[in-house]
Amino acid sequence: MANPKIGIWLIGIKGGVACTAIVGLAALKKNLTGSAGLVSQLPQFQHIGLLDWNQFIVAGHEIRRATLADEVLRLAAENRIVTEKLIEQSRPELDEIEQRIRPGTIFNVGPTISSLADADIPSQETPRETIERLRRDMADFVRDKGLEHLVVVNLASTEPPVAAESLPESWAELERLLDDSQKCPMRASSLYAIAALGGGHSFINFTPSLGSGLPAIDELARRWSTRHYGCDGKTGETLLKSVLAPMFARRNLSVLSWVGHNIFGNMDGQVLNDPANKISKTTSKDHLLGEILGYRPNTVVSIEYLPDLGDWKTAWDHIHFAGFLGVPMTLQFTWQASDSILAAPLVLDMIRFTELAHRRGQVGQMTFLASFFKSPYGMSEHRFEQQFQMLEHWAKANADSGRQNNETRDLANKKTK
Amino acid sequence: MANPKIGIWLIGIKGGVACTAIVGLAALKKNLTGSAGLVSQLPQFQHIGLLDWNQFIVAGHEIRRATLADEVLRLAAENRIVTEKLIEQSRPELDEIEQRIRPGTIFNVGPTISSLADADIPSQETPRETIERLRRDMADFVRDKGLEHLVVVNLASTEPPVAAESLPESWAELERLLDDSQKCPMRASSLYAIAALGGGHSFINFTPSLGSGLPAIDELARRWSTRHYGCDGKTGETLLKSVLAPMFARRNLSVLSWVGHNIFGNMDGQVLNDPANKISKTTSKDHLLGEILGYRPNTVVSIEYLPDLGDWKTAWDHIHFAGFLGVPMTLQFTWQASDSILAAPLVLDMIRFTELAHRRGQVGQMTFLASFFKSPYGMSEHRFEQQFQMLEHWAKANADSGRQNNETRDLANKKTK
Amino acid sequence: MANPKIGIWLIGIKGGVACTAIVGLAALKKNLTGSAGLVSQLPQFQHIGLLDWNQFIVAGHEIRRATLADEVLRLAAENRIVTEKLIEQSRPELDEIEQRIRPGTIFNVGPTISSLADADIPSQETPRETIERLRRDMADFVRDKGLEHLVVVNLASTEPPVAAESLPESWAELERLLDDSQKCPMRASSLYAIAALGGGHSFINFTPSLGSGLPAIDELARRWSTRHYGCDGKTGETLLKSVLAPMFARRNLSVLSWVGHNIFGNMDGQVLNDPANKISKTTSKDHLLGEILGYRPNTVVSIEYLPDLGDWKTAWDHIHFAGFLGVPMTLQFTWQASDSILAAPLVLDMIRFTELAHRRGQVGQMTFLASFFKSPYGMSEHRFEQQFQMLEHWAKANADSGRQNNETRDLANKKTK
Amino acid sequence: MANPKIGIWLIGIKGGVACTAIVGLAALKKNLTGSAGLVSQLPQFQHIGLLDWNQFIVAGHEIRRATLADEVLRLAAENRIVTEKLIEQSRPELDEIEQRIRPGTIFNVGPTISSLADADIPSQETPRETIERLRRDMADFVRDKGLEHLVVVNLASTEPPVAAESLPESWAELERLLDDSQKCPMRASSLYAIAALGGGHSFINFTPSLGSGLPAIDELARRWSTRHYGCDGKTGETLLKSVLAPMFARRNLSVLSWVGHNIFGNMDGQVLNDPANKISKTTSKDHLLGEILGYRPNTVVSIEYLPDLGDWKTAWDHIHFAGFLGVPMTLQFTWQASDSILAAPLVLDMIRFTELAHRRGQVGQMTFLASFFKSPYGMSEHRFEQQFQMLEHWAKANADSGRQNNETRDLANKKTK
Repeated sequence: MANPKIGIWLIGIKGGVACTAIVGLAALKKNLTGSAGLVSQLPQFQHIGLLDWNQFIVAGHEIRRATLADEVLRLAAENRIVTEKLIEQSRPELDEIEQRIRPGTIFNVGPTISSLADADIPSQETPRETIERLRRDMADFVRDKGLEHLVVVNLASTEPPVAAESLPESWAELERLLDDSQKCPMRASSLYAIAALGGGHSFINFTPSLGSGLPAIDELARRWSTRHYGCDGKTGETLLKSVLAPMFARRNLSVLSWVGHNIFGNMDGQVLNDPANKISKTTSKDHLLGEILGYRPNTVVSIEYLPDLGDWKTAWDHIHFAGFLGVPMTLQFTWQASDSILAAPLVLDMIRFTELAHRRGQVGQMTFLASFFKSPYGMSEHRFEQQFQMLEHWAKANADSGRQNNETRDLANKKTK
Repeated sequence: MANPKIGIWLIGIKGGVACTAIVGLAALKKNLTGSAGLVSQLPQFQHIGLLDWNQFIVAGHEIRRATLADEVLRLAAENRIVTEKLIEQSRPELDEIEQRIRPGTIFNVGPTISSLADADIPSQETPRETIERLRRDMADFVRDKGLEHLVVVNLASTEPPVAAESLPESWAELERLLDDSQKCPMRASSLYAIAALGGGHSFINFTPSLGSGLPAIDELARRWSTRHYGCDGKTGETLLKSVLAPMFARRNLSVLSWVGHNIFGNMDGQVLNDPANKISKTTSKDHLLGEILGYRPNTVVSIEYLPDLGDWKTAWDHIHFAGFLGVPMTLQFTWQASDSILAAPLVLDMIRFTELAHRRGQVGQMTFLASFFKSPYGMSEHRFEQQFQMLEHWAKANADSGRQNNETRDLANKKTK
Repeated sequence: MANPKIGIWLIGIKGGVACTAIVGLAALKKNLTGSAGLVSQLPQFQHIGLLDWNQFIVAGHEIRRATLADEVLRLAAENRIVTEKLIEQSRPELDEIEQRIRPGTIFNVGPTISSLADADIPSQETPRETIERLRRDMADFVRDKGLEHLVVVNLASTEPPVAAESLPESWAELERLLDDSQKCPMRASSLYAIAALGGGHSFINFTPSLGSGLPAIDELARRWSTRHYGCDGKTGETLLKSVLAPMFARRNLSVLSWVGHNIFGNMDGQVLNDPANKISKTTSKDHLLGEILGYRPNTVVSIEYLPDLGDWKTAWDHIHFAGFLGVPMTLQFTWQASDSILAAPLVLDMIRFTELAHRRGQVGQMTFLASFFKSPYGMSEHRFEQQFQMLEHWAKANADSGRQNNETRDLANKKTK
Repeated sequence: MANPKIGIWLIGIKGGVACTAIVGLAALKKNLTGSAGLVSQLPQFQHIGLLDWNQFIVAGHEIRRATLADEVLRLAAENRIVTEKLIEQSRPELDEIEQRIRPGTIFNVGPTISSLADADIPSQETPRETIERLRRDMADFVRDKGLEHLVVVNLASTEPPVAAESLPESWAELERLLDDSQKCPMRASSLYAIAALGGGHSFINFTPSLGSGLPAIDELARRWSTRHYGCDGKTGETLLKSVLAPMFARRNLSVLSWVGHNIFGNMDGQVLNDPANKISKTTSKDHLLGEILGYRPNTVVSIEYLPDLGDWKTAWDHIHFAGFLGVPMTLQFTWQASDSILAAPLVLDMIRFTELAHRRGQVGQMTFLASFFKSPYGMSEHRFEQQFQMLEHWAKANADSGRQNNETRDLANKKTK
């Protein structure tokens, strides 16, 4: 078995998506599961130099106290998405990872998320001190495990929105805000991003929170020759929007209204039940229709928290459209899927792709990951197929150098043995 | 107003799709309706030399006796898809077209279609005599109206399938079968195709019937430097399959089963209620999933005739798929749309595109029209987006010559004045 | 033809439900339509002495300026629910009724409804003066037409809720509040109710507004030996709730959550788009589940205004329930129906039943009408079947006296000739 | 713990419904599960003298070889409806019951069911010999366990239909057919019924097979002073039909068409995939609409076997109806439920009710069980609520004697100790 040398640092490591990714990665390492749901396992990505699952090792930040194993068991009991057998088989890995979990930050996350936090989470730090502490946690992990690279992924609960346009454009100016907790307008997700990128690690923002979605933080990434991308994983209803809206556009069918009603009951849902947090999400789910269609139909996006549904997110979409001679017609769909089961493999995929981008020396925004996100940074293309073709082109473009890099990797593997 | 000089010859001219196309074309000529549902009105097809709606003039074949105006009125009363006002405004055109309708053929169409036919339809002809008669009808129309080109579109009811592979590969051999009504294995749709192509006209098979879908008839088209394409217009449920199946493939979600249940009640439905005719349709609706996904999920396609639904085809699709860790999830959709309203503009679009292909000198199968068909001839690409990009590339490739041809057209316009 | 002598006074007479009821009544009088949707036409109500449609004559109050005929035409054009032909045939009746429409009141109805009102609506009156004016309008109608009885139906837009429990319990106390516009906590719907009941007319509150739903107003009805009932017509989604929830109860299936998402775009929807008005409606739609099931599942009821949907209300309900061994299962339904088409016949039915109750000498709340309402006054039975059986029992109980009364009616008919 | 003395004899004891009933009964005995899904646990049935779950003991017939425990585990693994923990806790009971399973019969069941059978199933017997053998199996169980009564339930796969009207009306005549395997037109289900009723046991036919649904077999039941009922458990889609169709009738909404499309993949589905067997089921699911509505709308009932769905039966129903002024509207529902989880508790409920009917001395058809069946014997009432009220009336009518019988039961309990 290959010696693992790439680190995965999960922020919100005890949440549903993280737990599923951890159990899934353990299952992949032991060949206990197939490749369903994993984009990076598609044929077109098989010979471009992606690392084996065995070469990844997990740690992370968390603000809640419960043990990882308990959270995974809860996921199994409440949602029937992970079998008890699989959890048993991953048990040693879960216990190991538990040792590597460090307290995160709840800086400026709002009352709903704060209320979930363990009392131990440091709360008297300045933003700069928090960043320092988070960065140290990551650096310790890299050093202790002799990691070649670390990919940090934000999977923490959705924060209330920040008026990004009011933030300074340059890192120099932004950096000056870090000493005053009162005046610093950023939230936890951006502190994590700064800690990660400032440490030279890659950063992926899987949530609608601000994270690294700022010119000043992009500048930081470029300065440290590292890379980042986001935001808000495109897993279900919005994925369908980005697939179906182009069809209406291609056929010149005029969308009159598009209603999307989402119900679910996991912790993500509990946090989104706070209107302040929800607005980040609905905005992210809604904007792409206008950008794909070229006009703004009437839209409603609602998200309701129903605890009995657990991780099983159900979306009902009703699309009212006019065809030839103005005749109104209707498409409705219902999407019933486990949010964690959809999201976790995409997180693993993006970590693999990001690690490859690191070896390719790519810096700044990883726009080739656009198909994974509801609101891809720096990107007005929202059609899923076009976004996916960007990923394929990127993969193909790097296939030759991929082969070279496989050799490099083999060398590197030898070096660390 | 420009002098119309392109003929449209509709086979099954009193059916729902044809009636809607006729009323719609009349409305377009008078600017009484918008461009919704018309692909050829999209921005990317605006400067490639397509003709104005005013330049088209309609005639066709039919086997039923009722007047065109009555059929249009029935469409309005039963299906609420065309307003009485619009029909009134098209009345003069309907009466004019009525004069140009000629009796079609029911050669070998099976008992269900035959039972709909008027007693006057000639039934003692050999296939060769029928073809001669049909060709003469078309030629008379071209001559009487001084048409520059004629596009023939098959909109007649779906025939029972023919074992196409058992038919001779060359036109020489096929041609020999035309004298013996007993031995000729083709059905009406192919006789229409032979009449059209043998007369140098373009031929489009919008139905699942065999039509021109034979090497021997393709050879005939090439011999007479004309063009054809089919088959089976992709308007609703299958369109969605060709849009959604790629999404499952891209995300490596494993489709376990795909059930499609279609209910509707127009004349098309009445004919498909005969199992012999239905098999042509369900085969056409079903095969593409395996071709897009690369494996065969469990599938069911059913079509049921419910007279009360009229032209409003409702499809319920249930897609059962496995994601990460093998977890089963579900997508369901319901599509409620008027079949004629979806199909009619596509017929008009393809006529415009075909007329342009004629001026470009394109011969044989028009594969750039693949996105319009459930079973595009000579084509294994069934993903809608990829098919549509073929249309866009064709349009762009011809844009320059398009400008030249606009001039040609203008000249031609002058010539005929 | 029998001489009409029963008056129908519609409050909000130019709204969708009223317009549909008016056109429908005209069609019924001329035998231009069948009995679909009319409860009072069921066999079990055929020999209990209900009056013929010909004996009813319509007038009403309105706050908007547009003509009745224009509103009816708009209904036809936007919603395709009434044919142009039918409108033409009702034209004389519409013009006649137009002459009988009087300005209503916008007392305390909130800004959203007020903004729809014509400038002519008197706004400087005290509540007492308004009641007087409204009562005079009704009395004039009764006198002018020689009516035997008048049934007043509130079909006006939904008002914001009133804290009914804070209102005085007796009419004597309530009556004292009528002189001070500032202190009178009632809204327009209750002023109409007081005007109607105080005039000895029957009153039906088809909306969720407070109307006659107060002990003090019920006292007024009893004092004047008249009758009233409400509130909030049960036409679609809530009807289904009252039919399906008992099934879950009967089978001991444990409802975990019931989500109802309603979208529509008529004027009712426009007014409900104001959260203050919407709360009256969602409360009315939501409470019955707990009362039928005996426990409170998680519920969401949302109503969204999508102007493109017009009168076509679409409801998606998602019911998550646990069965044997705690296994979670799901029922979803989609209800697509024209609100006015569902409501209008119920309005006509209740008018017939109410008129009969008047002849029977019934006074106070007409609980036998419970099956027509989402929130039937003084009633904890919300199961539709049980409510309907109350109507059947009432009908049967009165069948004998019904026969007597038929004679009375015949006598009365003679009298007026 | 009370001494069990009532026997449950399940025909098809290794099928999904039986396995779920067995595990569920074990869980109820140990208080490991709640009462969800159990009708007999409703408040109105609490003081009528029903026996405790602890007093029931299970045995049965089966034609397949696999062990009960394996079948239960498969149910858990494939359908996620029973937890592994619960199975573990029921393990001793499963092993005990395994010892009491006897080979059934495949007499005349058709090739699809026969192909599932174990080679050991006796196949050279005459019907009379088979009945004798089956009766002996039941008698041995009663004797060995000292049972006070035995309730036999047919849960075996659906047989092809039998032309019941061609069978003799009297037992004397029917009995004469039992010696000739070639001429005996009955199938296995009726042989089981004869064995049970002839042995004085109660018989419940939960399937659409003929079973005891014959005058001649009803005569046999009466002769032996025992009781029986059927057929075809009403668990899902048809239950909804019997709840929703009355609503359309009550509101005088005219049902134009009702389409029901059912998909599932358990063994029941596998057998129904044979058109000969399927016809028994679709007939049973379809007839009640006409009987409830009083007219025959267009209907389609389809059942498709999709192995990937396992026990999760999904039904999509599309109801097209006309309301006031003939306006067409639509209700659609999707029902997603585990067939076994819905059916098993009803089986247990009916066993309890039947045992009570035995103590009450009721003989012949148990019409008070109509609400549990799609095609209740001797019953034209198909409305669920009315059927359920029959059960409630029966329960209430027996409540007093129920109290007496509780005493009897206590005495009986003492007697057997």
